[in-house]
Amino acid sequence: MTTTRLAGVVTPVVTPFKSDLAPDPQRYLRHCQWLLAHGCAGLAVFGTNSEANSMSADERMVLLEQIVQGGVPADKLMPGTGTCALTDTVRLTRHALALGCSGVLMLPPFYYKGVSDEGLYRSFAEVIERVGDKRLRVYLYHIPPVSQVGISLALIERLLARYPGIVAGIKDSSGDWNNTQALLDAFAKSGFDVFAGSEVFLLQTMRAGGVGCITATANVNPEAIDRAYRGWQSADAERMQADISATRSVLHKYPMVAALKATIAHFARDPSWATVRPPLVELTPGQSGALVAELTSRRFDMPGVGA
Amino acid sequence: MTTTRLAGVVTPVVTPFKSDLAPDPQRYLRHCQWLLAHGCAGLAVFGTNSEANSMSADERMVLLEQIVQGGVPADKLMPGTGTCALTDTVRLTRHALALGCSGVLMLPPFYYKGVSDEGLYRSFAEVIERVGDKRLRVYLYHIPPVSQVGISLALIERLLARYPGIVAGIKDSSGDWNNTQALLDAFAKSGFDVFAGSEVFLLQTMRAGGVGCITATANVNPEAIDRAYRGWQSADAERMQADISATRSVLHKYPMVAALKATIAHFARDPSWATVRPPLVELTPGQSGALVAELTSRRFDMPGVGA
Repeated sequence: MTTTRLAGVVTPVVTPFKSDLAPDPQRYLRHCQWLLAHGCAGLAVFGTNSEANSMSADERMVLLEQIVQGGVPADKLMPGTGTCALTDTVRLTRHALALGCSGVLMLPPFYYKGVSDEGLYRSFAEVIERVGDKRLRVYLYHIPPVSQVGISLALIERLLARYPGIVAGIKDSSGDWNNTQALLDAFAKSGFDVFAGSEVFLLQTMRAGGVGCITATANVNPEAIDRAYRGWQSADAERMQADISATRSVLHKYPMVAALKATIAHFARDPSWATVRPPLVELTPGQSGALVAELTSRRFDMPGVGA
Repeated sequence: MTTTRLAGVVTPVVTPFKSDLAPDPQRYLRHCQWLLAHGCAGLAVFGTNSEANSMSADERMVLLEQIVQGGVPADKLMPGTGTCALTDTVRLTRHALALGCSGVLMLPPFYYKGVSDEGLYRSFAEVIERVGDKRLRVYLYHIPPVSQVGISLALIERLLARYPGIVAGIKDSSGDWNNTQALLDAFAKSGFDVFAGSEVFLLQTMRAGGVGCITATANVNPEAIDRAYRGWQSADAERMQADISATRSVLHKYPMVAALKATIAHFARDPSWATVRPPLVELTPGQSGALVAELTSRRFDMPGVGA
């Protein structure tokens, strides 16, 4: 992995599926390229909103190879590699490293609940030791509302002490600003990169020493979020923050993955983009129509998407 | 899969790991054979207490092949095959069917939380359709304390209407007798096999029309639980139930997987049995000592285990 670290707006790329629910590498590559051309500094492929955990390790590795072969620069990629299974996580992480990815975004093992920090420390340490490559950059993925298994400050402190440089940062999707603030206060000065888990906390995160946001809504609204990122010290910062938060709140009225895909389907004029894998369910036509109407009333657009 | 359905005491077999955390097929086979010789009617390999989700699909398939080749009758096996990923679940289920397993125990996809019954219906239906074999017997695995994604009565009703015979039963690990009672009331008479998720509810389950229990503690206490199962209509039923519940309560003072493995390690005189995969953590020597002392004070034993 490179020594240049990602910063700015990173998005967990939604994964297009064909009608038989197989991943669609062509649509996927086009969307990755569109995102990089429209404000995304990096792509956290295989995140929560990518339906990554609804795919096998092999499906994920094939897709990653396809986009790299298709021309997506590997140093823009931060694939999700954390799974329930130690051996899958090691395999996916090694694969990402071999392809030259900038880093990996690593969920803790999330099947067992109420596990100890000691157990989580051993999980991350075992993966890092097995991969055994100092070029590895691990971004911890803290998303307790979904994983139900969180990453505490004490765990991060222990990992940073043992693996400085390798443990590179965190995506905080707790939805709790107090936690992001605590992470920034504790670790930002030492070079640990804190990404807000959504653009709602982008301005606050930048002001407190963070490096950007990793946010699902950048799948559809990357330019405005990138402007807010670049302009965080400008006089216009509060207005830009309010604008991107308002757009997010429109999407957030619906289940996020389905809403993102419905939005892309509409603006790309490609209904097949709406397909999700079970257990997720696509929006109803009524929901899609209401979502698009509200976005359009805000002059929202996705110029060139899907082309 | 066979037309004979499993009933009685079934256990999610704990998975032994070597010091490098690789599965240990020799110890595994020996333990499976010991369990079948000591009261288990079937083996729900790759359950929650098997650390199944800490293993890759390939590791699970290799282990299953090894025990079948080692002489474990496939018609005694009900492997867990439900994962987060549609494609992994299909692959594991096809593999179990091809080996002749009696049925499969299927978790719902458990990464996304708050998913709809419609999404869960589509998940199970898609797996059943893709496997496409009327010999398939699916036992639903309801364990909301761990998976955080449950299986409602309405979902079961819909699945039974569409896939009668294939949707064969449930393991109810809700820990909520009212839910088990409701399942029995709604579905037991139609031939849907309800297993209690632990022996604590064995007698109540049998009295209300269930078929047995699938319980982790049968890894160490199979004979007593089997006696209670066989004697549920006897005058001694309440006493046997109290006895097995009391033994469980000793183990339940500790994290269950680590406690089961510590118990086997002691009675098999094989310390390596204590090994768990992260994120689980083995018992401390103090905990193991206290656990064994309390079991021994109850005249608990595991004759021949590990031999």
